[in-house]
Amino acid sequence: MSLYPIYNFSAGPAALPEAVLQTAQQEMLDYNGTGFPVMAMSHRSEMFLSILHHAEEDLRRLLKIPSNYKILFLQGGATTQFNMVAMNLAHGFRTADAVVTGNWSRIAYEQMERLTDTEIRLAAHGGEQFDYLDLPEPETWDVDRNSAFVHFAVNETVNGLQYGKVPRLSDGMPPLVCDMSSEILSREFEVADYGLIYAGAQKNIGPAGVTVVIVREDLLDRCPDNIPDVFNYRSHIERNGMYNTPSTYSIYMSGLVFRWLLAQGGVGKIEKINHLKAQILYGAIDGSDGFYINRIRPNARSKMNVVFQTGNEELDRRFVFEAELQGLCLLKGYKSVGGMRASIYNAMPLEGVRALADFMSDFQRRYG
Amino acid sequence: MSLYPIYNFSAGPAALPEAVLQTAQQEMLDYNGTGFPVMAMSHRSEMFLSILHHAEEDLRRLLKIPSNYKILFLQGGATTQFNMVAMNLAHGFRTADAVVTGNWSRIAYEQMERLTDTEIRLAAHGGEQFDYLDLPEPETWDVDRNSAFVHFAVNETVNGLQYGKVPRLSDGMPPLVCDMSSEILSREFEVADYGLIYAGAQKNIGPAGVTVVIVREDLLDRCPDNIPDVFNYRSHIERNGMYNTPSTYSIYMSGLVFRWLLAQGGVGKIEKINHLKAQILYGAIDGSDGFYINRIRPNARSKMNVVFQTGNEELDRRFVFEAELQGLCLLKGYKSVGGMRASIYNAMPLEGVRALADFMSDFQRRYG
Repeated sequence: MSLYPIYNFSAGPAALPEAVLQTAQQEMLDYNGTGFPVMAMSHRSEMFLSILHHAEEDLRRLLKIPSNYKILFLQGGATTQFNMVAMNLAHGFRTADAVVTGNWSRIAYEQMERLTDTEIRLAAHGGEQFDYLDLPEPETWDVDRNSAFVHFAVNETVNGLQYGKVPRLSDGMPPLVCDMSSEILSREFEVADYGLIYAGAQKNIGPAGVTVVIVREDLLDRCPDNIPDVFNYRSHIERNGMYNTPSTYSIYMSGLVFRWLLAQGGVGKIEKINHLKAQILYGAIDGSDGFYINRIRPNARSKMNVVFQTGNEELDRRFVFEAELQGLCLLKGYKSVGGMRASIYNAMPLEGVRALADFMSDFQRRYG
Repeated sequence: MSLYPIYNFSAGPAALPEAVLQTAQQEMLDYNGTGFPVMAMSHRSEMFLSILHHAEEDLRRLLKIPSNYKILFLQGGATTQFNMVAMNLAHGFRTADAVVTGNWSRIAYEQMERLTDTEIRLAAHGGEQFDYLDLPEPETWDVDRNSAFVHFAVNETVNGLQYGKVPRLSDGMPPLVCDMSSEILSREFEVADYGLIYAGAQKNIGPAGVTVVIVREDLLDRCPDNIPDVFNYRSHIERNGMYNTPSTYSIYMSGLVFRWLLAQGGVGKIEKINHLKAQILYGAIDGSDGFYINRIRPNARSKMNVVFQTGNEELDRRFVFEAELQGLCLLKGYKSVGGMRASIYNAMPLEGVRALADFMSDFQRRYG
C-alpha cells in the first residue's frame, strides 16, 4: 500500500464513499440479521424487495422526483439506453433530435438510429469543427417541434464539458431525454423539465452494472408492443422492475450511496462542496501562467471531470506517473483526448482535491 | 438469526460459497494490497484487467474451452441473449430453430423473433400438450438444416427438467445455441458441440448482473454491422470485452467462484457431488409412498432444480413455512407452477440437502 492516502480520480467505475464500503463489508455475509448475504437473495424475496423499495424511495427524496415519474434499475449501462430510448420513445415519429457536445452524445447520436425507422436529426453540436470547447445553449438548438424527443448529455465525461445551467426547453417542445451518467446527484435540478433521464451508476451512484432510468409516466404509452420485452420500458414498469433478474447487489450498493448522501445533507449540500472542489482545480490551472491548459469556455467547464494538459505529452505522462506515486491515482486522460483528467464526483473528498492542487503546484515548480 | 444453519434453496440469485463471500468481505476496501476497492477500479486499469484475465482463464480451464471459442462477460441476463443471439447469428437466414421444453425456452422462442426478419421455427417441444413432463431427445428434433441455429435450454429452472445427457447434433446440422444459465459448471460437457453458450451468472457462477457468453469464433462473421454495437458480439470481442463498462464487481465475484471451484477439484468432482445431492432428494420423493409428487420422467429430472408438491396447496404452504423456520429457505415453487422447488446448485453443500431430506420425512410423519 501507498504511504499516502489514496485518492481515486477514476472517471468510472469511480470512487465510492468509504463509509458505504464499510457497511457493505460488514453486511457481506449477513444482511441485517437475516442470515442472508444480499448477493444470495432471490430478487423476489421480501428481503430484497425491501432493499429495492428503500433505494427507490431514497432516490425519489434526493432528487424530489414527482409522483408521475417512474424509476427503473436496469442493466446494460447508458450505452444500452441510447437504443432503448429510440426503440421505445421514437416509435411512430418521423424524426427525433440529438445534440452532440462530446464523445458520449456523439456515440448516442450514431447508435440510436440503428434499430428504428426514425431519422435522428442533429439539432445542435459543440463548436463549428466539433472541437467540443463550448456548449450550444438550448435556445440555439434547431429543434423540430414534431420530433419524438431531444436527446443530449448534460456532462461530457471524456471532454470535460458540462452545462453551467441545467438545460430545459420551453413548453410545446418535444420531451428532453438526458444522459446524466456523470452528474446525477451532484447538483439540484427539476426532474419535471425532463421526459426521461438515464444514468449509468458507476460515477455518482454506485458500482458498474446498474443504470437508473427515470421516466415520465405518459411517455410509456409510446412503447411499442413488438419490441422485445427486455428492451421495453413498459414491460419493466408493469412487472415492478422484475421483468428479468435485476443486478441486485449493484442496486443494494446504490441504495447505500443514496442513504449516505441523505446523511451528508442531500444534493443541495453536496452541490456546494462540488462547486468548491471544481473551483480549487480550475484555480490551479488558471493560476499556472499557462503551464496547465484547459481551453474550454469557463461556463462550459465540467465540475465533475476536470481535463488539463501541459502541452507536452512526455511531461503529461510524467505528471500521471509521479502523481500516482503520491497516491493521486488514475489521472490519465481518455485515450482520444490525452493529457490528464481529474474526476471529482460526490465521493471525492475536498482533501483529495486539495492534495491534487498541491501536487500540481509542486510539479510546476519542478518542471515549469 | 435462525438457531439453525441457514440453507438457501433459492433458484437465483442463489447461494454463493461461504469461502467466496469471506474473501470478498476481506478485500472489500483493498484488493490485494492495491489500496483500491474492486468496485472503484476503472475497468481499463491494470488492476481490473488482471481480474478479468484470471476470471477468463479459470473459466477456460474449468470448462476446457477450446482456443477457437471467445468468452464475454456481458450485462442484461439470459433474457437479453434471446435477442442478441437472434440479431447476431440469424442475420441473412430465412429460419432459425427453437426447442421449447419449459418456461424459459418458451419465452426465448417468443421473444427472439421480435427484432429479426428471420422466422423462428418450433423444432420440438416437451409433451404433446406442452406439459413439460418429458424432454424430446435431439434425434427427434425436426431441425431444418438451413436454419441459422438451433436454440434450446439444457436445464429448465422453473419446471425442473434437465437433459440427462447433454445434447449434441450430428455434423452438418446448424450450430447449437444453448441457454446454460442454471447448469453451467455443474457437470462436464464438450464446448465444441456448441456454436454459442450463454448463462446468467446468478445460479452457478456468481451474483446477478453478469452473463457469460462463449461463442465459436467463426460465427462472429455473421454479426451484422447495422445493429447497435452494444448488442453486437463482434463489437464486444474486438474491444476485448470493453466496448462499454462491464459489470466489474460481478466479474470479480464470478472469478472468485471459478477459483473456488478449481480448488474443489473442478467440474468433474462437483458433478459427482451434484449427482449425490439429486439422488438424495429424488429418493426422498420416490420413497414417500406418493406423499411427495414429482411427475417428470426420471431421465429428464433436473439435478439442479428439484420440484415437488404434496397435491394439497395448503399443505405445500405449510411445508414452505415450517421449513423456513428450520433454516431451509426459499423453497417456494415458481408462481406458475406452485408447490416446492429446491435449487441445489454447486454452492449448496451436501449437508443442506440431507437436512432437507430429513425435514421432508419428518413433515410427512406429522402430516402424512
